[in-house]
Amino acid sequence: MDASLSDVSTPGRVAAEGEGISAEELALAARNHGLPLEALRYEVTPAGLHYVLVHYDIPAADAGSWRLTVGGRVRTPLSLDLAALRALPAVTRRVTMECAGNGRARLTPRPVSQPWLVEAVGTADWTGVPLRTVLEQAGVREDAVEAVFTGADHGIERGVEQDYRRSLPLAVATGADPEVLLAYAMNGGPLPPQHGFPLRLVVPGWYGMAHVKWLRDITLAGAPFTGFQQAVAYRYRRTAEDPGEPVTRIAPRALLLPPGFPDFMSRVRVVRPGPVRLEGRAWSGHGPVTRVEVSADGGRTWADAEVTARDPGGWAWQAWHRRWTATPGSHTLVVRATDAAGRTQPLEQPWNRGGFGNNLVQRVPVLVLPPGA
Amino acid sequence: MDASLSDVSTPGRVAAEGEGISAEELALAARNHGLPLEALRYEVTPAGLHYVLVHYDIPAADAGSWRLTVGGRVRTPLSLDLAALRALPAVTRRVTMECAGNGRARLTPRPVSQPWLVEAVGTADWTGVPLRTVLEQAGVREDAVEAVFTGADHGIERGVEQDYRRSLPLAVATGADPEVLLAYAMNGGPLPPQHGFPLRLVVPGWYGMAHVKWLRDITLAGAPFTGFQQAVAYRYRRTAEDPGEPVTRIAPRALLLPPGFPDFMSRVRVVRPGPVRLEGRAWSGHGPVTRVEVSADGGRTWADAEVTARDPGGWAWQAWHRRWTATPGSHTLVVRATDAAGRTQPLEQPWNRGGFGNNLVQRVPVLVLPPGA
Repeated sequence: MDASLSDVSTPGRVAAEGEGISAEELALAARNHGLPLEALRYEVTPAGLHYVLVHYDIPAADAGSWRLTVGGRVRTPLSLDLAALRALPAVTRRVTMECAGNGRARLTPRPVSQPWLVEAVGTADWTGVPLRTVLEQAGVREDAVEAVFTGADHGIERGVEQDYRRSLPLAVATGADPEVLLAYAMNGGPLPPQHGFPLRLVVPGWYGMAHVKWLRDITLAGAPFTGFQQAVAYRYRRTAEDPGEPVTRIAPRALLLPPGFPDFMSRVRVVRPGPVRLEGRAWSGHGPVTRVEVSADGGRTWADAEVTARDPGGWAWQAWHRRWTATPGSHTLVVRATDAAGRTQPLEQPWNRGGFGNNLVQRVPVLVLPPGA
Repeated sequence: MDASLSDVSTPGRVAAEGEGISAEELALAARNHGLPLEALRYEVTPAGLHYVLVHYDIPAADAGSWRLTVGGRVRTPLSLDLAALRALPAVTRRVTMECAGNGRARLTPRPVSQPWLVEAVGTADWTGVPLRTVLEQAGVREDAVEAVFTGADHGIERGVEQDYRRSLPLAVATGADPEVLLAYAMNGGPLPPQHGFPLRLVVPGWYGMAHVKWLRDITLAGAPFTGFQQAVAYRYRRTAEDPGEPVTRIAPRALLLPPGFPDFMSRVRVVRPGPVRLEGRAWSGHGPVTRVEVSADGGRTWADAEVTARDPGGWAWQAWHRRWTATPGSHTLVVRATDAAGRTQPLEQPWNRGGFGNNLVQRVPVLVLPPGA
């Protein structure tokens, strides 16, 4: 009884009511990983704690023979090795990156895919060459409208064999704010294999799907790209038939560094009574976060936290904190970010079939012990 | 309606028949992570790809003020800072580490805990001071029988509030083969936070629970340690009442670097027909792996792979490979390791209530495409 491609690569689906996490979702959760929430304490996420999502396999890559080709609607096609890229003026940018599917496994009904809860985020210092520097070298022709980026990771998704490939409108690819990077270093060292060694795209403010890893080709195209990751995946749609809207910039989110200490299995937080510093990070791809509110009663009442300013032109998360007096009993802490564009986090779940851009507020159950316990 | 500790920290349990992976298991899978199997290509696992299991939270640690205390049944209690440890003669050992719970989520019925499939493994070069060097400095008294190691990670587990704590019999703690290390570096750099920064124990050949991270105290004890992680967790038991046997050394296991390329969601491998190099790693905590067998028909027939020799006195995995001629259709690849002690991997699941030491053979479904597809 032989299988065919359509048996091993099935259409996207939504979990049935009451359906537990499947073995397939678990296999993705065991490979990919989020930021352990206590790592919100680090302004820059240390290696190995930044979230990782790999669509197919991490490709084997040899830095010595790696080439980035630039072609299509350009006057001078390029083939650049890493030495050529490193010879160009470099910049370093601190960027918060989040998976577009963050929060997916909290949705009802649950889209069946990588089952993130709230932790698919991280912040790193990315060093590389501005994309527009390289595009200027190649000389983009007037009839180009998009840049299409191809990674070296190869697989099948929903029946379509592909190299991972995404595009950006030319105005974004050559823009100044954000300035898109061809990054070859993370936190001062070479990119780790799982973060795109030896070269990746970094698109500050955009969800992770835009930051193409293991980048090997840029093709300037005269029409919008309609490949799988652009036209099929990563769209906000209500039904399978809905053409939907493209997933682009990161919606605002605040996360709480869970206070106290956890139970191993339930991860519920246990806190001793008295003053507690509640703190965490908040970010948005639409502008600086201007307000973080904290609720200690499950969202009934809210109080403003202090929020650090975002560096001008920066795309990293901002720290926030607020003091809370923990009283014995059960509490649900909730945090909510609002950005300069007026976007905020919903208290009831938004829903779309891919489980994208879901920035429902985080809820952290806490048990405060009696005095002296 | 207030919760109590017994509500948030419940007894261990086994999943009901047909019960999907729970939200709690998923939360652990999202925090902790395995080795993406394609990373078996690296002899030494790069940072961020080595498996990680954290019982509670990764503690905040300041290397400057960190102290390792050594007390109990010693002649000279010690309080060592990192500079003092670094001033002692250092050794570097390449060690394969595996979580005792690896394979747990494949068991039927499934013990409810961190839901590993087969990927909770990694190999690193650990640098530090032999534990016996420090124990000699302290002067272990004749009435000591065990060394008890305390980490800085704090939490609740099955109702017991605790710092993570484990012991080793004195003969193991002071032994030459394996030589136990107090490690302060991994792969030539400082320990990452999730791997125990700034100091951890490394016990070559033993499952991960013995390699206490964020190590802050060693107490020499006159009686066997009966703390939670020794007497309650990490025991091979059939029922909740069974006192069981302690989990110690790693059972043999071979893993296959999955050939071809994957489907995103099912992770099933797709392979083009023709000769394929099957390769992977194999290890055992009971001695060198002496044989790796490969089956391309789900375990009906087996053929020997070539296995590299283990470095004398080494505790790292060994590479193996075998050529396979892939013919169109569905196949299940299976690999099995046998060690010098004559231990091998079972074809039918072993079972115990904690899901420990489960070295059931890996099964890798593969779809080989028709020629030219």
